[in-house]
Amino acid sequence: MHQTFDAALGINLLHVNQDGADHNRAHFDQWGITCLNLMSSPGAGKTALLERTLATLTSELKIAVIEGDMTTELDADRLRQFGVPVIAINTGRACHLDSKMVAGGLHHLAHEYDPHTFDLVLVENVGNLVCPAEFEVGEHAKVALLSLTEGEDKPLKYPVMFQEADCLLITKMDLAPHLDMDLEQIIANVRQINAQVAIIPVSAKTGEGMEDWFDWVQSVVNDRCVTVR
Amino acid sequence: MHQTFDAALGINLLHVNQDGADHNRAHFDQWGITCLNLMSSPGAGKTALLERTLATLTSELKIAVIEGDMTTELDADRLRQFGVPVIAINTGRACHLDSKMVAGGLHHLAHEYDPHTFDLVLVENVGNLVCPAEFEVGEHAKVALLSLTEGEDKPLKYPVMFQEADCLLITKMDLAPHLDMDLEQIIANVRQINAQVAIIPVSAKTGEGMEDWFDWVQSVVNDRCVTVR
Repeated sequence: MHQTFDAALGINLLHVNQDGADHNRAHFDQWGITCLNLMSSPGAGKTALLERTLATLTSELKIAVIEGDMTTELDADRLRQFGVPVIAINTGRACHLDSKMVAGGLHHLAHEYDPHTFDLVLVENVGNLVCPAEFEVGEHAKVALLSLTEGEDKPLKYPVMFQEADCLLITKMDLAPHLDMDLEQIIANVRQINAQVAIIPVSAKTGEGMEDWFDWVQSVVNDRCVTVR
Repeated sequence: MHQTFDAALGINLLHVNQDGADHNRAHFDQWGITCLNLMSSPGAGKTALLERTLATLTSELKIAVIEGDMTTELDADRLRQFGVPVIAINTGRACHLDSKMVAGGLHHLAHEYDPHTFDLVLVENVGNLVCPAEFEVGEHAKVALLSLTEGEDKPLKYPVMFQEADCLLITKMDLAPHLDMDLEQIIANVRQINAQVAIIPVSAKTGEGMEDWFDWVQSVVNDRCVTVR
């Protein structure tokens, strides 16, 4: 956890972040947009998942992406090829997106486009299995990715991310034949931490599990449409 | 980067951490111990590397391990099987070890054993490719691990870790036949960030590169022996 209390100002920085997240969510709700926050270790496959997702779901949903990286627009450039607005946020030395950074992205979206026309904003967070879980950005649901290569013990060792997640994608399932990993053990460890989270094994390479993931995204968007619109 | 300034106390937390790191290093030097700080994303293979390392190097060096994890002693228990002192530090919600936590570990080591008899302390940091790079703990050299599965772009996207590293191990080389990864591109990207870092491709599974890694560790220990003792 980060230093979260500024004694001079008497401010709890997590509370300040939460106020900003609530403000962002009010904008999303006003515009009829569902926002998902995607989080994982570096290299677990967030961008590859988004490539697959944009390739399919842009025919059904109007999507924008907020792309968080410490430096570079490498991931943003990969996703721009799908013809959707991709707002790149370079966090510098910061290890996570916070609600103020995402507010800047939303301001840009609302300035360049009519935000009411969008259905879904996908936020790709900085690759980090610890810190992003503590900083809400205004999302309606949190999606965590755990690569099969990372090992069965990670839900137990990094519990906050797995507690917070609404959906967990176990990625790189195509590598299963080459790894000594026990998927059932991973799922059992996740269940120790979070009994409710939706768990979907996927491979962006082979397409395994992608329909289940798309269905989950659609269900969140649809549930919110009923509520909000 | 974390909140690093406490305005009420006028304290830069990175400076406080650095003072603590210098203090730890003074103890290591006084005891004739070399300290290495191992850092990577979750699941890149730090513990597997340490298992291989302890299995071989304990015949030549007297080693202790400081094992940082948010929760659990799963990794510490794996390493205790090699008959070396393993001091487990649970960081709670903290995403990195800091010098104060490691000072607690050193105090424990000095209380339980004669610290002058040790040659090497291996610190396994919390799995995080961002934050640990900014918090020195008193180490003489920083070792970063990047799994081949994490992708060629990671040195460019997470530059601080790669700038700071003295040695970079590219792990899980046994998976190379099953991945679309270009090792030369990874190395070229690392070199853009850090021209000096030693780069060693390894596999804890097959043993590939392990001799080079052991030689690197021995060279750091030997260089310091000449200087310190």
